[in-house]
Formats: sequence, C-alpha cells, structure tokens
Amino acid sequence: MMSEFNLQETIELLSRTPAALDALLRGLPENWTHRNEGDDSWTVFEVIGHLIHGERTDWMPRARRILESGNTRPFDAFDRGGHQQEIRGKSLEKLLDEFSNARTENLVALREMKLTPADLEKPGLHPALGAVTMSQLLATWAAHDLTHVHQISRIMAHQYREVVGPWSAYLGVMHCNGHSS
Amino acid sequence: MMSEFNLQETIELLSRTPAALDALLRGLPENWTHRNEGDDSWTVFEVIGHLIHGERTDWMPRARRILESGNTRPFDAFDRGGHQQEIRGKSLEKLLDEFSNARTENLVALREMKLTPADLEKPGLHPALGAVTMSQLLATWAAHDLTHVHQISRIMAHQYREVVGPWSAYLGVMHCNGHSS
Repeated sequence: MMSEFNLQETIELLSRTPAALDALLRGLPENWTHRNEGDDSWTVFEVIGHLIHGERTDWMPRARRILESGNTRPFDAFDRGGHQQEIRGKSLEKLLDEFSNARTENLVALREMKLTPADLEKPGLHPALGAVTMSQLLATWAAHDLTHVHQISRIMAHQYREVVGPWSAYLGVMHCNGHSS
Repeated sequence: MMSEFNLQETIELLSRTPAALDALLRGLPENWTHRNEGDDSWTVFEVIGHLIHGERTDWMPRARRILESGNTRPFDAFDRGGHQQEIRGKSLEKLLDEFSNARTENLVALREMKLTPADLEKPGLHPALGAVTMSQLLATWAAHDLTHVHQISRIMAHQYREVVGPWSAYLGVMHCNGHSS
C-alpha cells in the first residue's frame, strides 16, 4: 500500500468515478438499480444520491473548513440520510448527471485551492473521529468512492444470488456481509 | 432478489462491464492498478487478464458444451492461473481493449444462439459443482463481473489504507477480508 499521500493520483481517481458509474448503470433495467439487499439497505439508486450529497455537503466544505479554521472548529456532521432529498422525483440518469457535474465542479475548486505540501498537513477536527488532516480527508474522498463501488457491485450481485445456483459458493461478492455501507 | 433468470437483463449488464472498467482504469497511475493486497494476491491489472481468460475459455465454451452435450460431458476445468498468459508483455490499456473486444464478440455469439426458455433449462455438468443449468451459467457470467468489480474496488482501496488515517474505520471496503477473489 502507499505510505504517502499523492494529491494528483487522488484526483486521477476522483475524476474517473462518475464516468465509471455512468458506464455501468445508465440505462440498466431497474431490477439491477432499484432493488436493495433487504430490510432498510440501500438501492444502487440511493447510493448515487448519497454520493451526490457528499459532493454538496461533505468533502469540499470540509476542505474549506480546514483551510479557514484548522482544528479550531469541527466539521459539520454529515447527514447519512441526506440522499433522500437528492433522489426525490428523479431518474437514475438525472442522478448520474448530477454526480458527474458536482464532481467536476468540486475538482475545479480543489485545483484552484493550489494546496501546498504544508496545506496537506493542516489539521482538521472530525466531530466523531477527532484529529484528522487535509491529506486524510482527500484520501478518504477517493476511498469513499471505492467503498461505494464495492457496495454497488454487492447490491447488484445480491439480486442474482438465487439464479446463479451452486456457483454462489465461488462468487466472493455473495459472501460479503455488508461491512461496506 | 430476483427469483427468475432474465436473459436480456443479464446481457444488459454483461455489455456494460468493459466500458465501466475502462472508464475507471484507463490512464490511471500504476500505484492504483499494479499493486496488490499483499502476498500472492492479484493486482487490478491481473484481474483484467483473468476476465479476458474467462471470455476466451470459460463462459461461451461452456454454453456451447451444454447445447452440444448437455450433462453427458463435463465442462473443461477453468485455469485460475490462465491470466498469466493473457497479460505477459501487455499494457493495461491493451488488456482493456482485449476485454472489450472479446466480450463484444461473445455477446454477438450469445445472441446468435437464440436461446429459448427450454434451452435456458438445459443441464450441464460442472467438474466440481456438479449439476448446473444454462441459465445458472449465464447468470454466473454476469455475477462474476460483479465479483471482480468488487475485488478491484477493494484492491484499490487497500492502497489507501494508511493515508486515510482514522477514516478507515468508516470505510467498509477496508474491512472486506478478501472473500472476493
């Protein structure tokens, strides 16, 4: 694994996620995108709403908080139910467009910050986790994309748990127990 | 989850995976694509080689075996090390092209089979799992894509395990223990 944070390599990943999810999901039948893993788990559609909500309220607002206030003022708490307001009355295709546009705007703003190595070490205060740094925040932004790609693949695979028959034994994704919410 | 196999919805997913992986991975720095999860685990680069090897030797040859021989002749065993011959001397970009081309050719061939509902119930014989059906084989083809999307997201997230700092506690993908190979 990497022991040093690399801003450019983080942006490389962040810039690709919307197009990857678009290619995977746009036009896909709702049996794949609008079913969940049971109980109150999320559908793929809801996950995209959550990613949009993160673009609007989580990553860049927190980066700005670090630059403006360091660790003297904690981040605002992130609303894990905030996707509900993002998805209401919308199609998946609309959400994919919104995620792509919000991400593009955020990466423009991130580049305009012209973060220095010293900026990347600046401290922030997470309301639950405590002391964090700018580089940890930005690395988490990228890893958060990956955790939801992970979740999306698992939600979709769950829909085929029965129809694959005995092959479910060989399909690791069907043995993933939902640690990735 | 879905209790009945739907051929068209399976093809819809199968047709999207190469473009999704292309959008996620093409041009990405090798720190993301050529590092593994330790020991003899696979890199993202190797996973794409494995997907190509499946296109060439697994899914459609097995579908043809079912149509030709039913359960009177078992499938040839799949070589889980077969990706080595697919990746030697190649770039990730070349592999992404090969995966896309092989998938496109296979889906043309699948459509040309014009499988009937009766064909989908036809029995096959897996060398280890025993009795399977055509529909289970085709459902597994799609779910196998998803298990490797799941794995790819996990391999990539592993590279950031250290640099996300305390946020690793919140990132489900970093708690996935590799059931998805």
